[in-house]
Amino acid sequence: MISDNVPLLKHCHGIEADQGIHPATSHIFQVCIDRIMKVSNFRTPMLKGIVIGVVITLAFLHLSNVNSNDAVQSKDTMIVVVTPTYRRSVRLPDLTRLKNTLLNIANLHWIIVEDGPSAVPAVSRMLQMSGLNYTYLQYKTKFGYPRRGWYQRDMAIEYLENNKHTITGGQHAVLYFADDDNSYDTRLFDEYIRNVKKIGIWGVGLVGTMPVEAPAVENGVVVGWHTDWRPNRSFAVDMAGFAVSLDLVLTTKARFGTSCEKAGGSPEPCFLERLGISTDHLEPFGAEGVKKELLVWHTHTSPLKYDKRKVDLYGYIVE
Amino acid sequence: MISDNVPLLKHCHGIEADQGIHPATSHIFQVCIDRIMKVSNFRTPMLKGIVIGVVITLAFLHLSNVNSNDAVQSKDTMIVVVTPTYRRSVRLPDLTRLKNTLLNIANLHWIIVEDGPSAVPAVSRMLQMSGLNYTYLQYKTKFGYPRRGWYQRDMAIEYLENNKHTITGGQHAVLYFADDDNSYDTRLFDEYIRNVKKIGIWGVGLVGTMPVEAPAVENGVVVGWHTDWRPNRSFAVDMAGFAVSLDLVLTTKARFGTSCEKAGGSPEPCFLERLGISTDHLEPFGAEGVKKELLVWHTHTSPLKYDKRKVDLYGYIVE
Repeated sequence: MISDNVPLLKHCHGIEADQGIHPATSHIFQVCIDRIMKVSNFRTPMLKGIVIGVVITLAFLHLSNVNSNDAVQSKDTMIVVVTPTYRRSVRLPDLTRLKNTLLNIANLHWIIVEDGPSAVPAVSRMLQMSGLNYTYLQYKTKFGYPRRGWYQRDMAIEYLENNKHTITGGQHAVLYFADDDNSYDTRLFDEYIRNVKKIGIWGVGLVGTMPVEAPAVENGVVVGWHTDWRPNRSFAVDMAGFAVSLDLVLTTKARFGTSCEKAGGSPEPCFLERLGISTDHLEPFGAEGVKKELLVWHTHTSPLKYDKRKVDLYGYIVE
Repeated sequence: MISDNVPLLKHCHGIEADQGIHPATSHIFQVCIDRIMKVSNFRTPMLKGIVIGVVITLAFLHLSNVNSNDAVQSKDTMIVVVTPTYRRSVRLPDLTRLKNTLLNIANLHWIIVEDGPSAVPAVSRMLQMSGLNYTYLQYKTKFGYPRRGWYQRDMAIEYLENNKHTITGGQHAVLYFADDDNSYDTRLFDEYIRNVKKIGIWGVGLVGTMPVEAPAVENGVVVGWHTDWRPNRSFAVDMAGFAVSLDLVLTTKARFGTSCEKAGGSPEPCFLERLGISTDHLEPFGAEGVKKELLVWHTHTSPLKYDKRKVDLYGYIVE
């Protein structure tokens, strides 16, 4: 941010307009310039003019920056992405692609949870070099949990419970569970997730044997589920198809736990039920209209099997 | 770019420094301010000061921007990425992930070549919304060519031959063949491809049954090939493992053509031989040292088979 780097603008701190450039601009410039004039004695009108010129330009650019985002809400909503991960031959490319996607998203914190006892150096290095805001946790799946990221997601929620303010800085935050092998359009984050108030929901491509799984929506209200697989579930939605207000998760203490396994191994309805919401409260995105787009797909990268002890890696970092 | 939007700075056009901010800054400010003073009659010294302040700030921010790139070379080298593609259930997610990756790379032009007779609306839409510089061509594979992108890559080269200046604006350009299902770290583009003078070469992960295929390098010179598959090839390298100066391709008229098929179906050595270079001329990247990293992997997304006529797509765009 321009204003952070320029000592002159510190005099204007606290008068940055949330309300946008058009109505408030001239007032802000005036107050800002008045403050600078008070703290400085200028020897010549020309020098005074130079300072005013600098301030006007910086203030203008700063405010243009504030306004370049579509909505005020976008600036004030943080996206927290939780990704359970595990060691496999295609994990580094999968995580790298997700990293590349998240690099395009502002105001985001990425929590990666290793299903293992310790940090994997290749993953640490990739994250360090990414330039992203991230937290890399390690929790080997505990007895009783299925090995499908449930325990890792629960540990991420626990971490958020203990570090909420450090991560969000008090902003409204939306939690999204993003597996490392799926494919995400950047618009999913900025147009859907960023605008979630309590629980957002949308279609997902390539779920199981289906090209599409999506909420059935009429006039903005979810009235059922477009799916072939157990459409009678309370929330027939894939992990990639919803995002939840972090505050809601933390206040309801919702977790995946171990008991969802008994209900047929579908953790999503289990988790959503524990948030104490009904389908009326769901906020659907991109689910009405003529040409509906999928912005997330449940993809899987074909694994490559090899025995690291028998194959020459030529000194390259490989998992 | 800030300077494009500010009328005042038009007076300074042509005196923007390529050489960086430190030696030239004060001179530039002076020339710039002198020009503005010449074209304007200021009624008061204060007004004059304000204008000078505005100019100084804009010039400073503009030059900071110019210098924020790592190397001067980076600014002056364009990357042209050629991606052959074809319709399949996982094509939209694959192309979307590649789009997300390329969004992080400056000064890039993406040429996507459909193996089909006409533009696919879902692809066109994705590209239009991407914000990237791109060209979307369509060439159905001609008789005699294998259906593996050879014809599409040749058509992209032909397009570049006819539109070189429009695409590159006279800059040094490096051509890279990037299939849509592979995984690329953003550093591949900015640290390897961007620095290629004639032919760059590097390791690729997950090629065929091997975790790594890479050039064997000693003191910066390629002395052989780390591969299990036909290591006696003249250039035992995967399509994802090299990038070539566009000028070299256009001057040598190198093409994939149909005859490489006869040589065992390995188009890479065939194409590289036609560039008239020996291994001495190869510029290796990241191929020496203790911990070598892979920045590109030959991944494949598991396909999902379904019959669009029998499956409900619920109005979503699906291939």
